[in-house]
Amino acid sequence: MLSEMKRLLVGKPLANEQLAHERLPKRTALAVFSSDALSSVAYATEAILIALMYANRDALGLATPISVGIMVLLITVAFSYIQTIMAYPNGGGSYIVSRENLGTIPSLVAAVSLMTSYILTVAVSISAGVTAITSALHWLDPYRTVMAVALIGLLTLANLRGLKESGSMFAVPTYLFIVSMFGLIIVGLYNVATGSVTAAPAPEIVHAEFNQTLTWFLILRAFASGCTALTGIEAISDGVAAFKQPQSRNAAITLGVMAALLSLMFIGITVLANAYQVIPDGAAEPETVNSQLARAIFGGNSPFYFVIQIATMFILILASNTAYADFPRLSYFLAVDRFLPRQFAQRGDRLVFSNGVIFLGVVSAILVIIFQAREQAMLPLYALGVFAAFTLSQTGMVRRWITLRSPGWIRNAFINGFGASITALVLIVIAITKFSQGAWAVLVIIPVVVITLMNVRKHYLDVADQLSLAEAPKPTAVRRHTVLVLVSGVHRGVIPALQYGLSLTSDNIRALYIDLDDASTERIKQKWTQWGSGIELVILPSPYRSLIRPIREYIDQLSHRYHDDVVTVVLPEFIPNRWWQHFLHNQTAIAIKTMLLFTKNVVVASVPYHLDH
Amino acid sequence: MLSEMKRLLVGKPLANEQLAHERLPKRTALAVFSSDALSSVAYATEAILIALMYANRDALGLATPISVGIMVLLITVAFSYIQTIMAYPNGGGSYIVSRENLGTIPSLVAAVSLMTSYILTVAVSISAGVTAITSALHWLDPYRTVMAVALIGLLTLANLRGLKESGSMFAVPTYLFIVSMFGLIIVGLYNVATGSVTAAPAPEIVHAEFNQTLTWFLILRAFASGCTALTGIEAISDGVAAFKQPQSRNAAITLGVMAALLSLMFIGITVLANAYQVIPDGAAEPETVNSQLARAIFGGNSPFYFVIQIATMFILILASNTAYADFPRLSYFLAVDRFLPRQFAQRGDRLVFSNGVIFLGVVSAILVIIFQAREQAMLPLYALGVFAAFTLSQTGMVRRWITLRSPGWIRNAFINGFGASITALVLIVIAITKFSQGAWAVLVIIPVVVITLMNVRKHYLDVADQLSLAEAPKPTAVRRHTVLVLVSGVHRGVIPALQYGLSLTSDNIRALYIDLDDASTERIKQKWTQWGSGIELVILPSPYRSLIRPIREYIDQLSHRYHDDVVTVVLPEFIPNRWWQHFLHNQTAIAIKTMLLFTKNVVVASVPYHLDH
Repeated sequence: MLSEMKRLLVGKPLANEQLAHERLPKRTALAVFSSDALSSVAYATEAILIALMYANRDALGLATPISVGIMVLLITVAFSYIQTIMAYPNGGGSYIVSRENLGTIPSLVAAVSLMTSYILTVAVSISAGVTAITSALHWLDPYRTVMAVALIGLLTLANLRGLKESGSMFAVPTYLFIVSMFGLIIVGLYNVATGSVTAAPAPEIVHAEFNQTLTWFLILRAFASGCTALTGIEAISDGVAAFKQPQSRNAAITLGVMAALLSLMFIGITVLANAYQVIPDGAAEPETVNSQLARAIFGGNSPFYFVIQIATMFILILASNTAYADFPRLSYFLAVDRFLPRQFAQRGDRLVFSNGVIFLGVVSAILVIIFQAREQAMLPLYALGVFAAFTLSQTGMVRRWITLRSPGWIRNAFINGFGASITALVLIVIAITKFSQGAWAVLVIIPVVVITLMNVRKHYLDVADQLSLAEAPKPTAVRRHTVLVLVSGVHRGVIPALQYGLSLTSDNIRALYIDLDDASTERIKQKWTQWGSGIELVILPSPYRSLIRPIREYIDQLSHRYHDDVVTVVLPEFIPNRWWQHFLHNQTAIAIKTMLLFTKNVVVASVPYHLDH
Repeated sequence: MLSEMKRLLVGKPLANEQLAHERLPKRTALAVFSSDALSSVAYATEAILIALMYANRDALGLATPISVGIMVLLITVAFSYIQTIMAYPNGGGSYIVSRENLGTIPSLVAAVSLMTSYILTVAVSISAGVTAITSALHWLDPYRTVMAVALIGLLTLANLRGLKESGSMFAVPTYLFIVSMFGLIIVGLYNVATGSVTAAPAPEIVHAEFNQTLTWFLILRAFASGCTALTGIEAISDGVAAFKQPQSRNAAITLGVMAALLSLMFIGITVLANAYQVIPDGAAEPETVNSQLARAIFGGNSPFYFVIQIATMFILILASNTAYADFPRLSYFLAVDRFLPRQFAQRGDRLVFSNGVIFLGVVSAILVIIFQAREQAMLPLYALGVFAAFTLSQTGMVRRWITLRSPGWIRNAFINGFGASITALVLIVIAITKFSQGAWAVLVIIPVVVITLMNVRKHYLDVADQLSLAEAPKPTAVRRHTVLVLVSGVHRGVIPALQYGLSLTSDNIRALYIDLDDASTERIKQKWTQWGSGIELVILPSPYRSLIRPIREYIDQLSHRYHDDVVTVVLPEFIPNRWWQHFLHNQTAIAIKTMLLFTKNVVVASVPYHLDH
């Protein structure tokens, strides 16, 4: 029944040969790899404005210079990553680059940073996608968490089925988003140029102004908030292998185009938000800054407005979907390196790394529930992991150039070194300014998970050591059997177990019965004379009504008496015909088997007796 | 680790001899058995008032005549139950009485009605207890569901430990409640008599007045709502065995006293609620009618007011606790009669029927969460089950008198017949007038559960039949073994399994390996020549990466080839040292064992290899 349900949900299993790879042209690759990065313009400007509201609405104008600063940062990081693309034509994720160049611990820090940021990509993007819709249709707001969790469920399911990442699926929403954003920006700028700007109406409930003094700390925090615009920019360097030949060059060009588009969209939105005097919405059902802006420029009933909101939602869903490709792949690498349980390295029925997909879905759904699908509340957790991975990856590249000393290595090392220094600086700014808003949690989680991963590997190496055949004796048959048949009564289900026990040894066999009440014990003693076939019946007292303890004690005594032989506990199990009928019978067999598994030198043989109907 | 946690929570196991019984004097018995009935004055008057608000606040005055009608009903039911007490000196719960006199189906209807009402006793009483407190301390209201669930958790735990129902634990809160209620009523009536009544201030948000015409339907519905005052009145007839000798007489007197106290308190509160013109509170954080009344009479800052609220809370907690005694006992009876899974008939470590206790706790907690601990919303579900049990129990008594024809049988049959008719009439009134408010759910649940219980019994009888030894052959040893050793590689953990397999049969043995990737398969083939001890290695292809399917198919083929012998599948299992390390290894052994359990004529032998550290 369970397996039928699984078939219905994820489809028929796929054979190994069906694992195929697709090579993407630049235009499609841009759509596939840039949704994560481009979609961050849906929330980055708003994050800056909210951070500036710690002062007051007069400070909001600072958003424009801050976004220019972030653009400079973005271009630096993009240049730095072009180096990585050139050096790793088969894909150079942060984990790979830092493992190869920096060693285990930095690579694990990079890996864990990436894992947290993939999880947050899903949680943040899905929440922001839902907010794009609830901004247009306020009455949907009470269902936001439900909608976000449902979307995560659908994405998880689609990825368990092994969603074919066909280029067109990505191209339409991504290009629609790009076009609609540039449409918004061009019309807005035209209005600004012609002086026909009317300020966006202030939201009914304005975001809290805390009237703090506008210190450098506040400004840096607003900058740190805006750095969420850079999330997803590393995606292309991870996926170089998917580009058409010459893959590195094509990937580098695509990264350049993406960085240019992202910069223009982000600056454009921010400049317009200032020009239209958009104030962040502080209502219980907030409208996004982008929605306010689009409403101010096109009017809330215009079809253009709805196209923008819908395109925003779709690209955000695509952005989440990229994490569904990246997270399971990273956890596969980690599992192959023995840092994660090996279940993450197995392909499921549909050739996807199902366990990674499920893990990502569950954890991001939990985050969405905790934060009630408010993306702005999750952003402080997001940027930290992303910048940690940036820094480690760029540092790894510096190390690589210095070691290789290939032609042009000084220039290359300088570019990556500059990138690493800048991202490290931003990392520190984020850690400090966002510490109290949630970044502390990431700073705690990363080392804890890194230590856990290292312990997992230690355990696996340990086991491999113990399983080695170095000094093992060659297998020879067991010399002597001691057999215990557990009986819960004398009935038909016990007979095959007694037969099986007798076939192991005809003389060293006993039946064990736990005395739970006197009447039943008397009854079994009488029946045993007829059905016991001469096997000794041992009655174990159990004053505390435990079934486990008397058996364990008896076996302990037994193993003190004999050595060098094997005790087989034969368990008669009668198997009902339908699965639900199991609940009507004691599940003591399971408890007994679990206990015996941990008892040394005891083999458990389950002898089933199948009921007919 | 799990077992240590259990010890900490529920304490050390108790031996069978520690099961003891206590005989209670009348005064203590009143406290023990009446908390459920008496505590219903905490919500019954309010239920009537809320029902009358479907008309408007002018109709509230009808509460007084309605409560007089309910008092007459109460006295009738009490008389009827005194007959039951006399006839069943060892306890005559509705299930027992109707099983003995009416047959299986009516007794099951009675049992299921009682089970639903026990569950609701917990959910309603705990919620009402919490409301008594939040009425006094409004700021606690947002935590009401949490508090109610926590209280249910504590009660469940206390009952799992086997709470000793010492008389004094019950006596203090019960008598405190009785005294404080009578204090309230006497002071209130004195004010009424001296004309010094000032109307209670109307709540800030008055309960919705729906301005429906005051039809007989509305009045009957208000009556039906007030009938919740009768819940718990059957408790004494269930517990006659706990009284001192002469037990029936003592129990009957106690029932009389309880009925008198309950009538007086209920009428008193209702009369005063009308005299003080109390209007039900319709706020999101409502105050109870009793709290409004106590505030009007004593003032909200008076210590008397707080004593009343606290006493109300305590008696309501005690009332829930009685369900913790009744529900597991009833489910024990049903399990002994094979209508419920036998797990309900087992005493746990602490000699209580743990499964019944846990079930009650979980289901009532779910109800509390669904209804957000609003007792008034749950009341429509409550009275129906109670009156169904009343009616069946009284009808059973009528049948008994007619059958036995003992002296005075005509008078006795008349009393019970009158009780049965009246409660049947009220049952119909409740079913109709409360149908749309939730009674429909109970009307659906009762037949569904009754049918389920009958199917459970059918299954057990079926199994007993199939396990009977009537035509069974005497056990003799198995003639021929076929052994399959499943290997996932060649390592030390496999060697004991091979040894064990060789000891079963030296020639009819094969090792099975599932080919998941070519490289590993090549490696194992090479190693096998050295370590295989001449055992044939069978490589099973698995294009869909399934471990289960190739094994099943191989066994199917095998059993077509041979008959009359037993296939033993030997599973090497290596057992990590710590429980959490299990998560780091494939749990495929469990899946394989489960699959094989359902395969006929296959014995599974788990051969463990224990890792050291």
